[in-house]
Amino acid sequence: MNYVALQNNFFRLKSNRAFELFVIFIIIISALQIGAKTYDLPDNAITFTEFLDVFITLFFLVEITIRFIAEPDKRRFLHNGWNLFDTLVVAISLIPIDNSDMALLARLVRVFRVLRMISVIPELRILISSLIKALPQLGYVMLLMFIIFYIYAAIGSFLFNQINPQLWGNIAIAMLTLFRVMTFEDWTDVQYETMEVYPLSWIFYLSFIFFTAFAFLNMVIGIVVNVMEEEHAKAKALKHANDPTIEDLQREIRELKQIILEKKA
Amino acid sequence: MNYVALQNNFFRLKSNRAFELFVIFIIIISALQIGAKTYDLPDNAITFTEFLDVFITLFFLVEITIRFIAEPDKRRFLHNGWNLFDTLVVAISLIPIDNSDMALLARLVRVFRVLRMISVIPELRILISSLIKALPQLGYVMLLMFIIFYIYAAIGSFLFNQINPQLWGNIAIAMLTLFRVMTFEDWTDVQYETMEVYPLSWIFYLSFIFFTAFAFLNMVIGIVVNVMEEEHAKAKALKHANDPTIEDLQREIRELKQIILEKKA
Amino acid sequence: MNYVALQNNFFRLKSNRAFELFVIFIIIISALQIGAKTYDLPDNAITFTEFLDVFITLFFLVEITIRFIAEPDKRRFLHNGWNLFDTLVVAISLIPIDNSDMALLARLVRVFRVLRMISVIPELRILISSLIKALPQLGYVMLLMFIIFYIYAAIGSFLFNQINPQLWGNIAIAMLTLFRVMTFEDWTDVQYETMEVYPLSWIFYLSFIFFTAFAFLNMVIGIVVNVMEEEHAKAKALKHANDPTIEDLQREIRELKQIILEKKA
Amino acid sequence: MNYVALQNNFFRLKSNRAFELFVIFIIIISALQIGAKTYDLPDNAITFTEFLDVFITLFFLVEITIRFIAEPDKRRFLHNGWNLFDTLVVAISLIPIDNSDMALLARLVRVFRVLRMISVIPELRILISSLIKALPQLGYVMLLMFIIFYIYAAIGSFLFNQINPQLWGNIAIAMLTLFRVMTFEDWTDVQYETMEVYPLSWIFYLSFIFFTAFAFLNMVIGIVVNVMEEEHAKAKALKHANDPTIEDLQREIRELKQIILEKKA
Repeated sequence: MNYVALQNNFFRLKSNRAFELFVIFIIIISALQIGAKTYDLPDNAITFTEFLDVFITLFFLVEITIRFIAEPDKRRFLHNGWNLFDTLVVAISLIPIDNSDMALLARLVRVFRVLRMISVIPELRILISSLIKALPQLGYVMLLMFIIFYIYAAIGSFLFNQINPQLWGNIAIAMLTLFRVMTFEDWTDVQYETMEVYPLSWIFYLSFIFFTAFAFLNMVIGIVVNVMEEEHAKAKALKHANDPTIEDLQREIRELKQIILEKKA
Repeated sequence: MNYVALQNNFFRLKSNRAFELFVIFIIIISALQIGAKTYDLPDNAITFTEFLDVFITLFFLVEITIRFIAEPDKRRFLHNGWNLFDTLVVAISLIPIDNSDMALLARLVRVFRVLRMISVIPELRILISSLIKALPQLGYVMLLMFIIFYIYAAIGSFLFNQINPQLWGNIAIAMLTLFRVMTFEDWTDVQYETMEVYPLSWIFYLSFIFFTAFAFLNMVIGIVVNVMEEEHAKAKALKHANDPTIEDLQREIRELKQIILEKKA
Repeated sequence: MNYVALQNNFFRLKSNRAFELFVIFIIIISALQIGAKTYDLPDNAITFTEFLDVFITLFFLVEITIRFIAEPDKRRFLHNGWNLFDTLVVAISLIPIDNSDMALLARLVRVFRVLRMISVIPELRILISSLIKALPQLGYVMLLMFIIFYIYAAIGSFLFNQINPQLWGNIAIAMLTLFRVMTFEDWTDVQYETMEVYPLSWIFYLSFIFFTAFAFLNMVIGIVVNVMEEEHAKAKALKHANDPTIEDLQREIRELKQIILEKKA
Repeated sequence: MNYVALQNNFFRLKSNRAFELFVIFIIIISALQIGAKTYDLPDNAITFTEFLDVFITLFFLVEITIRFIAEPDKRRFLHNGWNLFDTLVVAISLIPIDNSDMALLARLVRVFRVLRMISVIPELRILISSLIKALPQLGYVMLLMFIIFYIYAAIGSFLFNQINPQLWGNIAIAMLTLFRVMTFEDWTDVQYETMEVYPLSWIFYLSFIFFTAFAFLNMVIGIVVNVMEEEHAKAKALKHANDPTIEDLQREIRELKQIILEKKA
């Protein structure tokens, strides 16, 4: 069997619905195996999960090889982020591990196999793409939020450093504390502590909550408006294809006028 | 009286507004009886609630029999989910209970009688139907959220298992802990505990909060856009019926052109 | 001076912008006086606030008398909810109080004077009216939410009564506990306590949070859609008044057709 | 070199993209220097940050001088809020400080240099402007919210003053406590404490949560509707410029009618 025939066969296999479902099934098995390992298992069950791990690793290796061979344009294969991610996850799984420190890392890499679910199911891939596409539009609101956090963290760190170094020790810790305040998680404990020294420090917290809530609201509205506009644009694009526009009418009326004027002349 | 006459009478009764209101009244009585049982009652009151329970059970039995007989197409009756639910609740209420373990179950079944409120009031039934209809459209966002939860739970279980087995003991417990983190419920306590061993573990929590918040936001926007589109579709359908469209105008202008051209010829 | 002249004078006074601003100024003074009373004041300040209280009471009495006399249609005056509210607040303020128990009540009534701010500023009155108008449309979602609360409270009260009577003692207390769970306020403490006896009770909490969040979301979307529709309706009403519609065009084209056909004939 | 040539050179410099990026770079350096100061630094690092501070202060002085000279209309320069803010931050940085109390203030002023990021990046400036523009439209909802807070704080202060003076001591403290309740931060602790004395005080908290949530929701919807309307207005303005309207069609049809009628006559 020559290479082109193999490629065609693999392409047919790759595009086969049953094959796709089987890959999803193996990813689910892989997820369950990872979940099972977090429990205290009897010895024979551990042996079984290890056998399963080898099988899954090999299956993923075979699957990615099939997909690579099936692709006529090898360069396009490598330019696809999802393919690179899949290859990376499979490649790292293949590295044999003896050291116990590395064992934890190996385990973590196996966790990312579950993410292959996203790369395999097209609907999830579209969902993620649209989320990533929405991010840059929110860039400036996020920058604004970061500036608010940075300024408040600097002020908090200067003023409250002596009161509770665990919360306000330096600007990084202070930013974490402010994130906690933003999620309303025991924020009054933080506030009451500093209010004993600076009775007016409630202004610090309330203004911070106000600004971040406002910026956050702005972000949410930004996303909603973006999504709505896309929907409108889609709806319009659909409409244009089928229905006549006011412009079409105008053209027809002008033609009519032309006809009548010509007759008159 | 023959069966058809009975059926017609029952259908009239079933469709009677007063009968409907009386059924709602009995469901409210049933709800109050369930509520009353959660209080410490004097002996005669307990006797009264028990008598009430028998009465309600019998009334519901009679009511569902009437509705069954009134329905001309028996098969359609059984294909309606609400009818099945009503029948089930009534049927289980009829089983006599001696054992004390079963008594708790019997009590729980009686609680579901309150849900009959939804099956009886059409507006609530429509509300529930529209909620259920919205669910599958959100299926992929929910799957994505589950994948995020699963991956973070696996990582958390691997890394923090030794620190606090009560929160990170296995993947199931870890997922519950992550749900807690998502609701911002004392999440900093969970975080500070693991930060003592892994000082960088705040990345774990912050990225998790970011991803779930983003996926959740996406879900909310998805629902809003769906609802809006339905409203638009409804508004358009209404408009089409009454108002002329641009297409209608185009047709009329073309007819006019035809008339003039014919005259010219 | 006869009554009609008095009525006209009072009407002019009532409609005077300066008079309106002065009434708002007195309400603000009244609010400040109420606020001041919550502090420990020196004796002469207490005497001053008491003098102020008498002055404000008399001023409000005079103002409402002016507004009553100024109104040509006395029946309409009494049919206006805001006027009734104002009159009630003023009338109760006039009752002399000796008893110390009643003193607290008298104080509370004076607090409601601040609400007169809403009855005096038209924009706030419109805001409140639109909020109240939105309520009935949400009636069924609220009923659904109440049913969810009632069922879960009954189940919680049956199952967890023995574990913590302070949280699950009877159906009323259980509903308060569930409201707490809905606000995510230390809900895991409640959960962990019951999970020690019923390890699967997390299903109870998670399903409750899911259902209420879903119903709440539905409510919010309902309000948003309502508001949007009103805006659309307003925008359309505005458009109709100025711009020609497609229907107008259709009529004109038909007239044109008529003219040409007549000529042809 | 005369003044006009200098002005033109500075204007070219100010408008230079590389110069803008360099200013942003120095602001970032300034932010990092502020952040670094919150850590315990070795002596030579402290000396370095102090040198850096002098350099940044001088750089900002030079930059603002350039921008002032580059501006042809000096009055317009001073009427721009951002320019005034920049000048103020730079001017205060120049004041030499010996006293240790003032040192803290000097540090705080340096923090505000980070805000210059907003004045320098046009996109952030637009974002802030649009946020500030949205505020007055929300004025009445905010006033309503303040009235709700004030009334509940007065009632809470009267009733619960004796129970916990730290939470309900006077109207100001009570408002802070109510803000805490609104953020759901350990609000049940506050509630359970007062419920021991007034068992019905849950009505106080639940009604407060209901009212504020409702007012807050109203505010959010208000912002969303505003943003949507602006988008619609923008979309329309764009459309009008390019596409013919129904009005244009009407005019053309009437012209046509005129032509035909003239011919007939």
